[in-house]
Amino acid sequence: MEYILSERVKTLKPSAIREIFKYAADPSYISLSAGNPSPEAFPSEAIAEISAKILSEDPISALQYSVTEGYPPLRRTVAQYMKDKYNVGNDNDDILITSGAQQVMDLLTKSVCNEGDTVICEAPSFIGSLNSFRSYNCRLCGVPVEEDGMNLQALENALKTEKNVRFIYIISNFQNPSGITTSLEKRKAIYQLALKYNTMILEDNPYGELRISGENVPCIKSLDTENIVVYAGSFSKVLSPGIRVGYAIAPKPVLQKMIVCKQGEDVHTNTWAQMVTNSFMTDYDFEAHLAGLREIYKKKADFCMELLDKYLVPAGITYHRIEGGLFIWCKLPEGSKLTMNEFCLKAVENKVCVVPGNAFLADEKEQSDSFRINFSTPTDEQLENGIKILGKLALEIL
Amino acid sequence: MEYILSERVKTLKPSAIREIFKYAADPSYISLSAGNPSPEAFPSEAIAEISAKILSEDPISALQYSVTEGYPPLRRTVAQYMKDKYNVGNDNDDILITSGAQQVMDLLTKSVCNEGDTVICEAPSFIGSLNSFRSYNCRLCGVPVEEDGMNLQALENALKTEKNVRFIYIISNFQNPSGITTSLEKRKAIYQLALKYNTMILEDNPYGELRISGENVPCIKSLDTENIVVYAGSFSKVLSPGIRVGYAIAPKPVLQKMIVCKQGEDVHTNTWAQMVTNSFMTDYDFEAHLAGLREIYKKKADFCMELLDKYLVPAGITYHRIEGGLFIWCKLPEGSKLTMNEFCLKAVENKVCVVPGNAFLADEKEQSDSFRINFSTPTDEQLENGIKILGKLALEIL
Repeated sequence: MEYILSERVKTLKPSAIREIFKYAADPSYISLSAGNPSPEAFPSEAIAEISAKILSEDPISALQYSVTEGYPPLRRTVAQYMKDKYNVGNDNDDILITSGAQQVMDLLTKSVCNEGDTVICEAPSFIGSLNSFRSYNCRLCGVPVEEDGMNLQALENALKTEKNVRFIYIISNFQNPSGITTSLEKRKAIYQLALKYNTMILEDNPYGELRISGENVPCIKSLDTENIVVYAGSFSKVLSPGIRVGYAIAPKPVLQKMIVCKQGEDVHTNTWAQMVTNSFMTDYDFEAHLAGLREIYKKKADFCMELLDKYLVPAGITYHRIEGGLFIWCKLPEGSKLTMNEFCLKAVENKVCVVPGNAFLADEKEQSDSFRINFSTPTDEQLENGIKILGKLALEIL
Repeated sequence: MEYILSERVKTLKPSAIREIFKYAADPSYISLSAGNPSPEAFPSEAIAEISAKILSEDPISALQYSVTEGYPPLRRTVAQYMKDKYNVGNDNDDILITSGAQQVMDLLTKSVCNEGDTVICEAPSFIGSLNSFRSYNCRLCGVPVEEDGMNLQALENALKTEKNVRFIYIISNFQNPSGITTSLEKRKAIYQLALKYNTMILEDNPYGELRISGENVPCIKSLDTENIVVYAGSFSKVLSPGIRVGYAIAPKPVLQKMIVCKQGEDVHTNTWAQMVTNSFMTDYDFEAHLAGLREIYKKKADFCMELLDKYLVPAGITYHRIEGGLFIWCKLPEGSKLTMNEFCLKAVENKVCVVPGNAFLADEKEQSDSFRINFSTPTDEQLENGIKILGKLALEIL
């Protein structure tokens, strides 16, 4: 049989990162290409303890069907936490627990975008989200990211000229892959532009709690007096990605439709995972855990940046210093003999995996002169060996 | 702000059952409207034991990101199980672990249906699946179900006249809501019709293991020499619905696209749940557990049918005797003074919830003379009281 596929999936390809992730599972390769939290960052013992308690005291609640909106105590806990700590959410918003933050991108796109509608995203941006938008046949319009966030002139041009822009997608803190944080001034300006052009903002903030230096910048959602921002939160980087728990805080009329779409997608998020998350936030010292994470990641990030200074900078590769998150964005020297793709291929031949920058662009066929390094997954030894190999390679062939 | 919603969600409503489920959570109501497995059917102790083992011996595997296709040992276990026991799956198929079987409906629709394409479904059929198809703006075409499955003439008419029929959706065993099982003859005939009209079949089989009498009928997927059938399997009724584990066994070219769509939806299914499921199938006596379930449900179903004979049949309400599953389909007498909707409303006023039959139709505005009763969720006492109230009401007002 010749299978007929929908238009929306015809050109859809597996995420380059997920594919590299499989490939990089080969232990003879050094993978700097993943986005996994550091294994030492998981509160495994606490989770085992909580899980044992739930499954002995209240197994039926954990194992039975639940409501699509999410486990009610977790909804309350997260809503209160985000309100108290970040002023995120108001009376016109509501909260939905999702199967990872990835599902927020999916559900919002499904709820507000017709095929052919436009999503404005940062260039570069997170490939998983871009693929989610693509999977509804959205047109992606990339706006170049500068040191302090999107280029505002380019953003306004896009808002003016693109048809049916449904939302602006922003990873506001320690953006994946560029590592940059949008400044408060730009957050305000982007919010005003969204209002002016009558479009929504999807603020994705998986790394916000992982700041290792500098001052916290208020969320765009905390400025949202007009209820145009959908906030995507995640427990993947602060608790565990394998349990797939995220959430949306969004204006009620939009969230209502996202809930109906979630009913049709997976009915509800794994209840055990929601109960574990709630207990971890309420019965344990969540803030102390976050402080511990920041320490782990600060050590790793500082170490990685030292290595980059030592091995890559002398070879002409520059990078953007980060204040948090899991990724560092490295740029090949001007006038390189090799393109970035050729360099990444050479790196793989030398058993080091990094992600080529064009994977993060609205149009993957565009050129990029950068690649992404992750420092949270590899061991210190792998990190040092990997970056040393990249540096040697760069000196030899660029 | 006036929120712009996508065309596909504009008319989408929350599932009537999910809504009634919330409503029926009020303990002063007797809910015969849910579809929850009986709490006594959960192997809670085994799950607690397995979970403790996983979280002490291999917590990182359970908590870290995993691959979209699913936890490899579970994929192997399920594929082998379905091949050995039901001859489901061949070399041209592959398996994807999903976040409940609901996600199979979603991913297949997303992968093969453009907006406006047609899905042929049984009339009545499972509302969750219908909503999933609707959420991609598919046109639903219902084919009336008889005692032994779809009316073949009506099916062929639909295949002849409907445009762009992408698949025929069938719940082959103890169909939700009608309780009927498609006969082997009709399975073969439906398969031949699908081949003749060059369309696929989506066989959804959540209740197949819950047969309480009669002989097993081979799955349509087991007849699939031409690789046109997508099989949706579920652990919701045989292990736990709250953990959200299901799977698709499907022709590789289609499954590949479903995997890419899943990446964009939720990256992967909760890993802990996949590991628990795998251990339960391999380290425990899964067949003995299934035998225990059948015993529980046989007792409940027989008791329910006795009550129906005692209280509803004398009032003129008839029902289809079931050989498995969780639901019984009841029909109001001809010439009733009340419509089915009026009767269901009266039942709610009398604190008994059942699901009105039109909720299960492709067009909910169509009339139905039936309602659905679930016997797995209520206690025996609730079941008896609920059916007694329905019977009294029927005698008084029909």
